[in-house]
Amino acid sequence: MDKDTYQARIKRCTEMMKTEGCDILLLTKPSNMQYLTGDGRLCAYAMITTDAKVAMGVPKTDIEDVKQGAFFHHIVGFEDEVGMIHSIAHYFEHFNLKEGTVGLEFTFLTQSMMGIVTHPHAKPKDVMPKDCTPILSGLRLVKEEREIDLLRQAAVVADIGMKAAIEAVKQGITESQIAAEAEYAMRYAGAEDFWRTYLSSGPRTGIAHGLPTNRKLETGDLVMIDIHPIVNGYSSDICRTVCVGKPSNGKQVAYNLYLKAQQASIAKAKAGIGMVELGEAMHGIIRDGGYGEHIFGPPIHGVGIDFEESPLPPGHAFFHGEKEPPPLPVNVVIAIGNCGLYTDSWGVRVEDTVVVGQQEPIVLTRYPYSLEVK
Amino acid sequence: MDKDTYQARIKRCTEMMKTEGCDILLLTKPSNMQYLTGDGRLCAYAMITTDAKVAMGVPKTDIEDVKQGAFFHHIVGFEDEVGMIHSIAHYFEHFNLKEGTVGLEFTFLTQSMMGIVTHPHAKPKDVMPKDCTPILSGLRLVKEEREIDLLRQAAVVADIGMKAAIEAVKQGITESQIAAEAEYAMRYAGAEDFWRTYLSSGPRTGIAHGLPTNRKLETGDLVMIDIHPIVNGYSSDICRTVCVGKPSNGKQVAYNLYLKAQQASIAKAKAGIGMVELGEAMHGIIRDGGYGEHIFGPPIHGVGIDFEESPLPPGHAFFHGEKEPPPLPVNVVIAIGNCGLYTDSWGVRVEDTVVVGQQEPIVLTRYPYSLEVK
Repeated sequence: MDKDTYQARIKRCTEMMKTEGCDILLLTKPSNMQYLTGDGRLCAYAMITTDAKVAMGVPKTDIEDVKQGAFFHHIVGFEDEVGMIHSIAHYFEHFNLKEGTVGLEFTFLTQSMMGIVTHPHAKPKDVMPKDCTPILSGLRLVKEEREIDLLRQAAVVADIGMKAAIEAVKQGITESQIAAEAEYAMRYAGAEDFWRTYLSSGPRTGIAHGLPTNRKLETGDLVMIDIHPIVNGYSSDICRTVCVGKPSNGKQVAYNLYLKAQQASIAKAKAGIGMVELGEAMHGIIRDGGYGEHIFGPPIHGVGIDFEESPLPPGHAFFHGEKEPPPLPVNVVIAIGNCGLYTDSWGVRVEDTVVVGQQEPIVLTRYPYSLEVK
Repeated sequence: MDKDTYQARIKRCTEMMKTEGCDILLLTKPSNMQYLTGDGRLCAYAMITTDAKVAMGVPKTDIEDVKQGAFFHHIVGFEDEVGMIHSIAHYFEHFNLKEGTVGLEFTFLTQSMMGIVTHPHAKPKDVMPKDCTPILSGLRLVKEEREIDLLRQAAVVADIGMKAAIEAVKQGITESQIAAEAEYAMRYAGAEDFWRTYLSSGPRTGIAHGLPTNRKLETGDLVMIDIHPIVNGYSSDICRTVCVGKPSNGKQVAYNLYLKAQQASIAKAKAGIGMVELGEAMHGIIRDGGYGEHIFGPPIHGVGIDFEESPLPPGHAFFHGEKEPPPLPVNVVIAIGNCGLYTDSWGVRVEDTVVVGQQEPIVLTRYPYSLEVK
């Protein structure tokens, strides 16, 4: 991204700050910092004023590295938490902000991190904290063309990871080893990093968040593979379920139903659709198929710099500090198929990253669907 | 771990709850739940009463899976955040807790998660939240013999990952690809999963938290490799810095100094040592060598279920909701060497996982030290 991109984003940000009644932002969430400054690193912060000034604080070791890629007007290095606190106070003074509101990321800050950024030695006492999650989610909701390109590249890498994982599926290999194959292939295909890999098998496919274990695959097991590469700062989200050997009829029927439901939801991913309607397109078919009691988790979430971001479904959004998303405009990017179908002894899940299109959805992840490994 | 282990831990926990004035705990941090119940999963909670009753809430899909391994007296499944909130209210009622204090993990809960667990439909209004971080950190500080065995196994896997990474170091390979080699080897050596891999090269070794990128290694570059396998639920932490080709004299001198400082600190890791003294043993030598301005981050932190946990150095601890640790008893496990030595154009870091011994430190990670790849 070039300087103009960040300036335009910060301009939009300041407009939303004014609408929301936020006098300054104090961001620490890497993805939000990356979006507005081009640099999203751990243990750092960015302050944004309503007149579009950007001030950063980073570990003192990192200043030169940040300077090479980030867009900002001021930068300071700090040595530790005390230094960080003092540098925040310095910026409040520099910007002459003695009262008003400071936007903080309530969905990201733990109580103890909140204690640092609102410490009496950091924040002036008459500046009141306010959740800025809706501002940042609103800003990042619709993807720019350049972002769609990056998400497309990440999806290509996700497909390569899925291929490697599925080709490794065989009796005796462990869940963790299949994860290794996916991650290895994604890194060699250009992922600089990845988010958590979910990998479960057999009865463990029936749980909601199956992280990999050393369980060995047995014939007849289902294997659920959910991977999330990061490529040039953008993420992708793909999930496939496959069977070790020939699937039983019951598993195949459930898989077919789930895939039908997911595809029906994907088909509706066009501008103007609501999150509830999109989720319902999926849940309705699963319910009609007799598996209504076997769903867990919202079927859809946004994908961008983070592999899970806004938009979120209304109920879920509320509890994650988000606003209910509006009818989706074109170029919102979502993962469809997150809810899963979980029986007592196994589960299936199929998920793809999809661009909400004007006329048609654009499916970014393209790995073929098949419960049986060909 | 067997049932007796968890009962003994919960017994100790209830004693600390009474000392700290905590009437019930409501835990959501996976590592804390794992320590007390044997099950630490995402999107779940455990409530512990002062009479040692354990109540769990998990995704409704996960009940059977939790039952197989966890120690608890009550379990409920929930469907979503609303269900989670209601199930918490149910337990408060069941335990007849209408007033008093509920211990919450302030170092783990974001503002929005705090909103869920303290929602008026979850928590009775006269039950006041209180940070329980010190209780859990205190409980987990000294490792049981069985835990030391598990940490030893994790260290063996960390050494295997380091070997694979260092053997892959050559001109032209990317940081991310070296990370791939380490992670792949660790998963095949028995890691069910791992924490974030830090991997930086060239000028990027000079920053505090170098996550892998697609930067290609060049001759003369330093490469910093910091890896953290999870094996049977326990973690390890090892860092080595190596050079692509022959290191310059300046880099070798800095490396030798850092290693000398780290080894001096390790030599002091015996029962009764204070965290400040242990850190100072390392920092003093670096300062005396003329690199006092080039350190970032605390030199030492605990290792256990989490790869970074209590004990933390006093200043750092304070800002992370922890108490200043007491002089370290035998069988505290720590990583020594976390601070790094960062110049403007490169950095070195060497870190090992060490058991505080009665007479001698026991170094768990054993990969040899050498800046030059042999």
